[in-house]
Amino acid sequence: MLPHLSIAPPDPDVAQRVAERIGGKAMPPGALGKIADLAAALAIAQNSEEPAADPARLLIFAADHGLVDEGVSVWPQDVTQLMVDTFLSGRAAAPVLAKSAGVAVRVYDAGVAGPLAPREGLVQAGIRPGTRNAAQEDALTAEEVAAALAYGAEAAETAASEGARVIALGEMGIGNTATAALLGSAVAGLALAPLVGPGAGVGPAGLAPKLAAVERARARRPGTLAPEAALAAFGGLEIAAMAGAVIGGASAGLAVVVDGFIATAAALVAIKARPEARRACLFAHRGAEPGHALLLEALEADPPLDLGLRLGEGTGAVLAVPLLRAAAAVLSDMASLADIGFEGP
Amino acid sequence: MLPHLSIAPPDPDVAQRVAERIGGKAMPPGALGKIADLAAALAIAQNSEEPAADPARLLIFAADHGLVDEGVSVWPQDVTQLMVDTFLSGRAAAPVLAKSAGVAVRVYDAGVAGPLAPREGLVQAGIRPGTRNAAQEDALTAEEVAAALAYGAEAAETAASEGARVIALGEMGIGNTATAALLGSAVAGLALAPLVGPGAGVGPAGLAPKLAAVERARARRPGTLAPEAALAAFGGLEIAAMAGAVIGGASAGLAVVVDGFIATAAALVAIKARPEARRACLFAHRGAEPGHALLLEALEADPPLDLGLRLGEGTGAVLAVPLLRAAAAVLSDMASLADIGFEGP
Repeated sequence: MLPHLSIAPPDPDVAQRVAERIGGKAMPPGALGKIADLAAALAIAQNSEEPAADPARLLIFAADHGLVDEGVSVWPQDVTQLMVDTFLSGRAAAPVLAKSAGVAVRVYDAGVAGPLAPREGLVQAGIRPGTRNAAQEDALTAEEVAAALAYGAEAAETAASEGARVIALGEMGIGNTATAALLGSAVAGLALAPLVGPGAGVGPAGLAPKLAAVERARARRPGTLAPEAALAAFGGLEIAAMAGAVIGGASAGLAVVVDGFIATAAALVAIKARPEARRACLFAHRGAEPGHALLLEALEADPPLDLGLRLGEGTGAVLAVPLLRAAAAVLSDMASLADIGFEGP
Repeated sequence: MLPHLSIAPPDPDVAQRVAERIGGKAMPPGALGKIADLAAALAIAQNSEEPAADPARLLIFAADHGLVDEGVSVWPQDVTQLMVDTFLSGRAAAPVLAKSAGVAVRVYDAGVAGPLAPREGLVQAGIRPGTRNAAQEDALTAEEVAAALAYGAEAAETAASEGARVIALGEMGIGNTATAALLGSAVAGLALAPLVGPGAGVGPAGLAPKLAAVERARARRPGTLAPEAALAAFGGLEIAAMAGAVIGGASAGLAVVVDGFIATAAALVAIKARPEARRACLFAHRGAEPGHALLLEALEADPPLDLGLRLGEGTGAVLAVPLLRAAAAVLSDMASLADIGFEGP
C-alpha cells in the first residue's frame, strides 16, 4: 500500500529521553496520568523530543456507499452531500468543535454520489460518485482503490507541507458504519455480527436488515482479505482515503489523530498493510458504536477520551487536540524537580 | 455560610430551551454525548441560554496543614511554599496546562506556613500561616473559617468583575488529602477509612500512619458536623477558601469547574451549607485518589474526563475548559436540521 512512501523507524532514544524528562518533572511520579502518556505518544508519533500539537488540521473525507441500496441506513444518501455543504459553511459539529479547539479544517470529496460544485475549501478526488453496491459486486476496482489511497496520502502531505504537525481524520458517508464493519471483519479476522451496530441511528428493528445486508456482502468475499482487496470488495472511497492519509501522515512525520469506528477501521486497514504506520496514530476517543471497542482492542489502543460521541466527522479527534497541546506543553514548559531545587520526597 | 451572598434559583426555561436547541441540531439524536450534557450544565450554571467558557480563570489556593506534624505526607511542608513560587513562575503543571488551554491563572496564599514575599500575581489572605494540628486541637477558630470563606468568595467576585465567565479551582497544600478525607467524612457522613488514600505518594507502608493520624483528629470531633464546624475542626484554609469561591462564584453567575479530591471536598462543604450552589458546579475529572469516587457519588456528579491525574492544582479542571468551549460553541454556532433543510430520517 503506497509503497513509494517510506516511514522512518521509531527512534528508541526519543522514547527513552521523553520518559526521563517526564519522570523528572516537579510532581509526584505518574501524577499526570494519561497526559504524560500522550506526551510520550506524540513524541514517538513525530519522532521528536520536541513534539508539537500545533498547527493541527482536521481533514474530513466524504463519500457515498452503494450498499445503502440494501437498506443499511435510516438516512437518505443525499445527506452526505448536504453535510459536505454544512462542513463548508462551518456550521456542522466537526468544524464548530474544530474552531473551538483551534484546529483548521479542510473538506475532501472522496466520492460523494450527488453533484458538488467546486468551491474554496473543497478538494475533489474525481474518482467516482460513490462505491458500487458491495452486496452485488465489488465496490471498487483496484485502480480506484489506489487512486483513493493516493488522494488521502496527498491530503496529509499537503497538510505537512503547509506546516501542520498534527492531522485529525474525520469522515461523512451515509452507510459507512456498514462498510467499516466489513473492513474490520475482513482485515482483522473478526466476527462480523459484533461489529454491526446502530451507526447514525438504526433502531433495534433496523439492525437485522443491516446485518443481513453486510452478511450478503461478506459472503461474496469471505475469509481474511489483504487490505487493498478488502477496500476493493467493500469500499469505501473515504475510508481508503483516510487509510492513505494515515500512511501519508506517518511518512511526513505527522501525528495522526484517529477517533471513532470508521476512522479506526481506516487506521486498521493502513496498519495491516504498513505496520510501521502504527506509531503515527494517536487514538483519541472511545466511540459509542459497539464495534469500536473491538477494533481498538485489535490495535491495542486505549483512547484517553470517552465522551459518548457517536457522530463521526472527526469530532472526537478534534476534542483530543487540546489534550495533545497540554501534553506538549508539559514536556517543553514544565519545571523539573531539579529546577525548583528539590529532589523528591 | 456567607449568608450575605444570594444565589439566584435556576431558571427552568433555560434548561428546557437549551435541551430543545440541542435536540434540533444537525446530527442524530444524542450523538454529541457528554458534550451536549456539558452545554446544558454550563447553561444552567450560568443561568443563561448563551453560556460561555471564556474568559476562564484558574484560581489556585495554597495553604499548609498542622496535621502534617502527625506524618500524613511523605513531602516536607515547605514544598507548599516552593510550589507557590513555581505557580508564579508559570512552570508548575497547572499554569502550564492552563496556558495551553487558554485559561488565565491567579495564585492565592490562603495560609502558607513559610514566608512568601508579596508580589505581582499573588493574593495573600493574611489569616494565619497554616492550620493548627487537628489531631491535637481545632485547626481553625470560627473567625478564621469565616475569614477564609470570605477571602475565597472575594476571589470569585473579583474574577467575575474582571469579566470571567468560568472559574476553575486549584489547590496546593502538603497534607491536604488528609484534611479532605476528614471533611468528606464529617459533612457527608461517610466512613473515614475509604476516604484515606495515597495522596501525593504515600506508599502502602505510609497509609496506616496516615489513617491513624486522621482517625485521631476525627475522634476529637466525631459524628456528622455542620460545614463551618467541620472546617474549624479540621481546616484547611485553602479548602475553606475554595468553598467560599464556590458560593461566591455561584452568587456572581459564574460556572465553577471542580476537579479532584480536595476541590470536590471543598465543593461538598459549600453545597452542604448552600445547596443552591450545586448548579454552578461543573465536575471535570474523576481523579485517581480512591476517595474521590465516594465524594462524587455523594454529589451525584459524573465528570466527563478520566485521565488518571492525581496532581491537584486544578489540572483536571483546566483540561475540561476546552470541552466547555466546545459545548458552548455547539449551542451558539452549530446548524439545526431545519437550517440545512432537512427534518430528520
